[in-house]
Amino acid sequence: MSITRINYERLKNFTSEVFQKLNVPKRDADITSDVLTRADLRGIESHGVSRLPRYVFRLKNDLIKPKPKMKVIKETSNTLLIDGDNGLGQVIGNDVMELCIKKAKKSNICFGTVRNSNHFGIAGFYSIKALQHDLIGISLTNSQPLVAPTFGRTRMIGTNPISIAVPSTTELPYVLDMATSIVPLGTIDVYARNEENIPPTWALNNKGIPTKYPEKVLEGGALMPLGGTEENSGYKGYGLGLAVDIFSGILSGGAYGTNVGSPYEKTISNVCHFFGAVNVEAFRPLEEFRKDMDDLVNSMKIAPKAEGQDRIFVHGEIEWEFEEDRKKNGIPFNEKVIKILQGVADDFNLEL
Amino acid sequence: MSITRINYERLKNFTSEVFQKLNVPKRDADITSDVLTRADLRGIESHGVSRLPRYVFRLKNDLIKPKPKMKVIKETSNTLLIDGDNGLGQVIGNDVMELCIKKAKKSNICFGTVRNSNHFGIAGFYSIKALQHDLIGISLTNSQPLVAPTFGRTRMIGTNPISIAVPSTTELPYVLDMATSIVPLGTIDVYARNEENIPPTWALNNKGIPTKYPEKVLEGGALMPLGGTEENSGYKGYGLGLAVDIFSGILSGGAYGTNVGSPYEKTISNVCHFFGAVNVEAFRPLEEFRKDMDDLVNSMKIAPKAEGQDRIFVHGEIEWEFEEDRKKNGIPFNEKVIKILQGVADDFNLEL
Repeated sequence: MSITRINYERLKNFTSEVFQKLNVPKRDADITSDVLTRADLRGIESHGVSRLPRYVFRLKNDLIKPKPKMKVIKETSNTLLIDGDNGLGQVIGNDVMELCIKKAKKSNICFGTVRNSNHFGIAGFYSIKALQHDLIGISLTNSQPLVAPTFGRTRMIGTNPISIAVPSTTELPYVLDMATSIVPLGTIDVYARNEENIPPTWALNNKGIPTKYPEKVLEGGALMPLGGTEENSGYKGYGLGLAVDIFSGILSGGAYGTNVGSPYEKTISNVCHFFGAVNVEAFRPLEEFRKDMDDLVNSMKIAPKAEGQDRIFVHGEIEWEFEEDRKKNGIPFNEKVIKILQGVADDFNLEL
Repeated sequence: MSITRINYERLKNFTSEVFQKLNVPKRDADITSDVLTRADLRGIESHGVSRLPRYVFRLKNDLIKPKPKMKVIKETSNTLLIDGDNGLGQVIGNDVMELCIKKAKKSNICFGTVRNSNHFGIAGFYSIKALQHDLIGISLTNSQPLVAPTFGRTRMIGTNPISIAVPSTTELPYVLDMATSIVPLGTIDVYARNEENIPPTWALNNKGIPTKYPEKVLEGGALMPLGGTEENSGYKGYGLGLAVDIFSGILSGGAYGTNVGSPYEKTISNVCHFFGAVNVEAFRPLEEFRKDMDDLVNSMKIAPKAEGQDRIFVHGEIEWEFEEDRKKNGIPFNEKVIKILQGVADDFNLEL
């Protein structure tokens, strides 16, 4: 398949223009575009601009409000409860994370929980925002049910990701950004399209039995939580998925479990998020903390390698390397994504 | 193997007496005993009184101080930095969690981080303390290195557990209490003693290759993080292990990674912990929150079961059931543990 590289800034402008055509104010369109294109920049294509048609569909069909009135329902010096008024998850996430950062600077810690939002893209976008302020950033979100609980067979909880970003100095910052399932559903899709088998450790058929056939997963099966089967402690991934749902959906009084809507369906999603910011200086001098982070990260990188391996990665490292390359050389897209983007461009009379 | 049941209260008194004989003040001995016997009560025997000889050894050899002077190094309305002065982890954990609870009641959230402590037993003991106060409890700890990072082959991080406890009403509270490895090293030990193979998904030999031979793991191999190999997203478990180390060891300015000592070695451990308490009412009315928790927990329990399964568990459920049974009928121990306990009893002229 031929690959076309698109300049990052151009892609960002294009994406923002699409949202502006859908009546999203320029500021909000810019933020949404920033989150989506950052995913492509960081090599997380599953959460990037290839999702544009879905946003177009949802905005055109009033399933997402282009001009929501985000409301602070309850607020203290270190907590926030927000109603997103069914706006774009990216804008809500960005704004609530910024509020959290502000509060954490004054009050050491801030937790912000959000109901009535939408898919917010990569969780890492929000946790990373804290790094510029020398804070630890945390970002969680629930999502439509795709994962079966241990011993279950139906889709009961989302792939509910956890992101944590921690400042360092000489080393790249640690940025965890992980779904609490083993793989996303999109990966199962790719195997199905390529007519390849999946590892039998990833997902279940509609009887709740691990399967190597991706189509069996897509036809009423479910993803397995991180860990997989009970023998391999899959109940831990299931437990983490629940924890994310509790801090996002239940703490905010929004949707949780099977009540969270899918971006593919013609219903309101009511996705819920959780954001946290922690001021290291409330505990110890920032420079000492950063030095220890450098040391911990470095100790992993220089640790003895497994036979046949020549590198140990620390979380976020691969993504930063993608970012550096792609900012310089453009973001590579295959024909399929280019066609998707061209379709969106044509739809709005825009130039890609 | 024959099984002897010991009355819970009697076991608790006996265990406290042992610590008192080792110059631990009665209050602290009672707390330590409470944590250890609670593990046996809840069916987590690996963290129970079978560990007594190790505590005896460490207290006798001045590797743990029986009368430490725990110090608050830094304190704000919602944060605590504590130096444990190398005291018993159970006492430090108990006291810091109580301080956190007090602060969270006034200030919505409290984070407490602890350096210079020791193995604190089951992480769930501390998070559960928050439930009596209608708070969400969080408890993390680092531990001696046993887990290899993805693509590594040596023991670089601990099994670093995560515990989160959340109040509910009609359903049992959700209590996650999970190591970030697939299994603890103790499980590998058991297989080795029984001359049985382990699943090849759990651990690595000294070349960093997954192995089914438990002795290969014990002889210079390492545990795999939750998820296992890279194909099954083991880097997520590795990332969670690092997160626990960051909040426990680095935020507190204590030991982290390979610097954390083993309770089996004749060195100071410098184990570090992290505790958190969150007041739900800062976000929404407690009763509404609890009702949603009941609903989420219940929805998992009644979800359709996988073929061949008749029950889906929610985290903490099995442990509460053990507790109920064992409080009534005594805690069952096999001959081996009885022999260990008898040895300790003889050592101190105590009656078991």
